[in-house]
Amino acid sequence: MFLGEMFEGKVLYIGKKPIMSYVLTAVPKIVDMGCLTIKARGMSISKAVDVALILQDRFLKECTIEGIDIRTEVLEGDNGELTNVSSIEIRLRAPVGVQAA
Amino acid sequence: MFLGEMFEGKVLYIGKKPIMSYVLTAVPKIVDMGCLTIKARGMSISKAVDVALILQDRFLKECTIEGIDIRTEVLEGDNGELTNVSSIEIRLRAPVGVQAA
Repeated sequence: MFLGEMFEGKVLYIGKKPIMSYVLTAVPKIVDMGCLTIKARGMSISKAVDVALILQDRFLKECTIEGIDIRTEVLEGDNGELTNVSSIEIRLRAPVGVQAA
Repeated sequence: MFLGEMFEGKVLYIGKKPIMSYVLTAVPKIVDMGCLTIKARGMSISKAVDVALILQDRFLKECTIEGIDIRTEVLEGDNGELTNVSSIEIRLRAPVGVQAA
């Protein structure tokens, strides 16, 4: 994944952009693909939950949350030290032919 | 629930305290009760995920995450305006007789 890119296949990576920028990019993708996984780490986890719920509440009311997983990832810092970071994965599914509200 | 209190029955509410303060209060509770629900809203959602994973990774390795739910809550602000806030609920279970690591 290139820095700044949001999508890798069916996965939307949440970072430092504004919430609505992720939501608006996600709507056509989930309509097109029928499913979408939202992933985030650390402080972006709260934003990932916001994105999933705004998608469901405001744009794709028939979209369901299929599953949510949380886990600890071990990342290597610039100095080679290993750090534990929490991560979340939210799996969304939209029925075939769903229309954005 | 009184302000500043962390627990209400089997529910641990995550707010502005440091992560480890929630973790260390939760360990004897979950050992005692066998289960625990962690709840948080807004920016505290990331901290709730940290608390659940630290409990599982470092203190109660046999503890399992039974389920995670996210939803939008409508809160009334001081000025009477309604605001949507994301919330998370993480349900943990520890086998009977589990020992803290």
